[in-house]
Amino acid sequence: MAKKYVIGLDYGSDSARAIIVDALTGEELATAVKYYPRWTEGKYCDPAINQYRQHPLDYIEVLEATIKESLAKCPAGTAEQVVGIAFDTTGSTPVFTDAAGTPLSLLPEFAENPNAMFVLWKDHTAVKEAAEINKLCKEWKIDYSAYEGGIYSSEWFWAKALHVLREDEAVRKSAYSIVEHCEWLPAILTGANKAEDIVRSRCAEGHKAMWHEKWGGLPAEDFLVALDPLLAGYRDRLFTETETADKAVGHLTEEWAKRLGLTTNVVVAGGAFDCHMGAVGSGVTPRTLVRIIGTSTCDIMVSSYEEMGDKLIKGICGQVDGSVIPGYVGLEAGQSAFGDVYAWFKRVLEFPIKKIIGNSTLIDEATKAKLVDEACSQIIPALTKEAELIPISESTVIATDWMNGRRTPDANQMLKGTITGLTLGSSAPRIFRALVEATAFGSKAIVDRFRSEGVQIDAVIGIGGISLKSPFVMQTLSDVLNMPIKVCKTEQACALGAAMFAATAAGVYGKVEEAQQAMGPGFASEYTPNAENAKAYQAIYEQYVKVGQFTEKELFC
Amino acid sequence: MAKKYVIGLDYGSDSARAIIVDALTGEELATAVKYYPRWTEGKYCDPAINQYRQHPLDYIEVLEATIKESLAKCPAGTAEQVVGIAFDTTGSTPVFTDAAGTPLSLLPEFAENPNAMFVLWKDHTAVKEAAEINKLCKEWKIDYSAYEGGIYSSEWFWAKALHVLREDEAVRKSAYSIVEHCEWLPAILTGANKAEDIVRSRCAEGHKAMWHEKWGGLPAEDFLVALDPLLAGYRDRLFTETETADKAVGHLTEEWAKRLGLTTNVVVAGGAFDCHMGAVGSGVTPRTLVRIIGTSTCDIMVSSYEEMGDKLIKGICGQVDGSVIPGYVGLEAGQSAFGDVYAWFKRVLEFPIKKIIGNSTLIDEATKAKLVDEACSQIIPALTKEAELIPISESTVIATDWMNGRRTPDANQMLKGTITGLTLGSSAPRIFRALVEATAFGSKAIVDRFRSEGVQIDAVIGIGGISLKSPFVMQTLSDVLNMPIKVCKTEQACALGAAMFAATAAGVYGKVEEAQQAMGPGFASEYTPNAENAKAYQAIYEQYVKVGQFTEKELFC
Repeated sequence: MAKKYVIGLDYGSDSARAIIVDALTGEELATAVKYYPRWTEGKYCDPAINQYRQHPLDYIEVLEATIKESLAKCPAGTAEQVVGIAFDTTGSTPVFTDAAGTPLSLLPEFAENPNAMFVLWKDHTAVKEAAEINKLCKEWKIDYSAYEGGIYSSEWFWAKALHVLREDEAVRKSAYSIVEHCEWLPAILTGANKAEDIVRSRCAEGHKAMWHEKWGGLPAEDFLVALDPLLAGYRDRLFTETETADKAVGHLTEEWAKRLGLTTNVVVAGGAFDCHMGAVGSGVTPRTLVRIIGTSTCDIMVSSYEEMGDKLIKGICGQVDGSVIPGYVGLEAGQSAFGDVYAWFKRVLEFPIKKIIGNSTLIDEATKAKLVDEACSQIIPALTKEAELIPISESTVIATDWMNGRRTPDANQMLKGTITGLTLGSSAPRIFRALVEATAFGSKAIVDRFRSEGVQIDAVIGIGGISLKSPFVMQTLSDVLNMPIKVCKTEQACALGAAMFAATAAGVYGKVEEAQQAMGPGFASEYTPNAENAKAYQAIYEQYVKVGQFTEKELFC
Repeated sequence: MAKKYVIGLDYGSDSARAIIVDALTGEELATAVKYYPRWTEGKYCDPAINQYRQHPLDYIEVLEATIKESLAKCPAGTAEQVVGIAFDTTGSTPVFTDAAGTPLSLLPEFAENPNAMFVLWKDHTAVKEAAEINKLCKEWKIDYSAYEGGIYSSEWFWAKALHVLREDEAVRKSAYSIVEHCEWLPAILTGANKAEDIVRSRCAEGHKAMWHEKWGGLPAEDFLVALDPLLAGYRDRLFTETETADKAVGHLTEEWAKRLGLTTNVVVAGGAFDCHMGAVGSGVTPRTLVRIIGTSTCDIMVSSYEEMGDKLIKGICGQVDGSVIPGYVGLEAGQSAFGDVYAWFKRVLEFPIKKIIGNSTLIDEATKAKLVDEACSQIIPALTKEAELIPISESTVIATDWMNGRRTPDANQMLKGTITGLTLGSSAPRIFRALVEATAFGSKAIVDRFRSEGVQIDAVIGIGGISLKSPFVMQTLSDVLNMPIKVCKTEQACALGAAMFAATAAGVYGKVEEAQQAMGPGFASEYTPNAENAKAYQAIYEQYVKVGQFTEKELFC
């Protein structure tokens, strides 16, 4: 039987990774990572105003470099057997294009203009525009934000587009359309040369651009014009239809086949966001919540149409038909801070190390630098070692996990974190344990919301650094959720998910679930809840809820 | 004019200090401190069960040693010109005596029995007995705890007496009376040889033994017997009358004059508790709150009979006619933790220094020990340096100061501390600033309670380590209270206060206030409130109150 290989491309915030995978077994042949060159230099960004822009040449250069490097690591003949390629990217990360669908920053006159570049997901320059969108949505006859959790974010498509239009007359005059990063890559590789020909991502547009079948696509022209006349005409020039990522967008053009060292037989799949493809890559199925656990969490579910009906799940980030697995409603939620909560406490404890030991004259500079580094890097392991020995009956310090606001359930960026139950005996490990429990309670609040809204969850899959690195955190999470948690074996679940979409789009599989079955990476470990701990945590969780309700109602409003 | 000298003896928890003072000017001639020898060895104590006992020989040995050493530092002829001596001690620190008024532990058969020794104020072995007293007080026709804040403590007279009686049959059989440390010292020096002849301290008995004129002295016999028949008979054998500390108890006996190198002309004043005499020593007057600020605070006020009338001040530690300045009602309040709150945060921050740097192999043991010591000792100064630069507008972390429960207003040992308003940017100095503000808010709650109960407070005097050591804490306190704060110049305010009582008892002055005028130490510094800060803090204080009310009502009950 001939070999069939697929390429998954995962575009993160700082770098992109390509993996080459056996389409029949999921076996990884080779991988390569490249950092975005201009981004790495800090170009086009201004952290003081939360402006984060990325140049399209960064994306193109790492595309070529990662594919060539990973192909070079494969046996001769591999390139000829590659049948599909797919992309996942961050999002919402849109850019203004001309009528040909070319990002304006690829035109000489806009080459150095940040407003003509991709506006990265974490760019927060459009806070004011988001507020206007939210206000209008609540006043309008249709709440277009309904399927995006009811609160439109400054990180999303229309807020960013409107902000750039208002800010930059030159861009305004030359702009014709707007495209998401995950749509643009398939478009260029397949030779789309009109903005209207770009295949639109169900995942990106459904989650971030208020696209929904119910109202015939994007929000109505009169809504957009009411928001700002600068948006007039965009709706018609943009699109009505969107596609799920398992659909082929086309084949590699001759030019791109040559540049990448591949053939024109390669099918290019539709694009989607990283966590959504990551969920597929790690084995998402109905009734299983996939959690990408890092500094924050991204929580992805799929739910059948039978289960969902016409339901609108209150207070989550979004629900979009086909945004994860085609044929199911994709549901997205998440915590604004997870590992970041631990990192915050680590920074607090670093204070005397950096400020006092770092300035001590008792030891030489070189030893001091080593000692400070060693001490800082050991804080979390040392806390973990002691925290896991504390019996739950002594978990009397109670914290909330809102140090970065709350994303779900019920987004509220004004919220702040709390630690209570403190006594003169509350040690650093006891506080750390409370923080770990708090992040688990924040997770439980999301699970409880899904369930109370009628979405069944029986198990959890963890992906991302913390799930592989901290058995203490994962066991606490399993106990608090009172559910088994499997930890995905690969750290490249997103790229692998993209590879599954590539294989499906190339016809190796009839549907994504078959690709998951055949190509799934399996699990590195499994945590099972301890029934007694689960019971004890239920009582502490009720305290967490009380503390949260109080601070939300009385302090941070 | 002939010189007149007085001796003030201050018995603390670990040591006693004698000072020899010019009775006309307050000038300090000499001082000497001695640690209790048996106590320093850890004898008769068991921290695991909070048992803290002190041997009477410890008290006698340091009495002789401190007086002799300080006299030796004075010009020849000083001893002959000493006219008075007075004592302040910790309390409630009672001991069982025989019929002669001799502490049982001075009898050979009880020499090593902790139950026959003084039960130090912080001994908490009588928690159960305190609970029984509280229960009975609320059920009885008279609430005998009314003038002691309405909540009887395990640190006090009757709880400790009952606990020892139940615990120790030998003591029970030999016990005849009970005496407080501050009463016993004047008694032995003046040659009292019957328990009934011991002059009883208004301060000690009024604050800790439920003695009140209103019910003719101690609680009624039927109350005590209802508590436990083991207490039968004590009331009659104990006392009906108490005396203020300005009254002479007698003169030094020949034997004691010889032992101490003094004359039998020396008048021995009545005894009182340390903070009460400290308040006198530092200049307490009506409408001025004196705060002894250390690990916790002891807050002392005097109020005129006109102002007080029949009033019962709700939720403070106690109110006793003449316990501070005769002719005024002495009022006592306090915070369970003040400096201890900062010390707790310091311990939290020490974790990585002690656990990681303390175990590092990068440097030799000797350097490591020095480095760890240096780092730990610099934590509070380093936090202070950065915390005082943070503008009040950025004081968005809010804490409560109940890490050791709450003493006043409204004692509640179940309460615990809280820190809220935390973000990923909340640094160690920001948290420290919140903790300093929290201790100041706890102070404001006490001041507000006095005022709402009709006791006027115009100014504050601070005594104790923190008031001399931390301008940041003191300025914050002044701003939060919106009142000027003077800091007492001497750190020996308690011993100086005792010297004032000695001078009054010896007839150098007609009343204590005259002694204060003539002998007062003056002030080291004064803090005045910044009006803008005071206004800003008022708003934050309201948040503090909200957080406190929530945790008290919903979490720690």
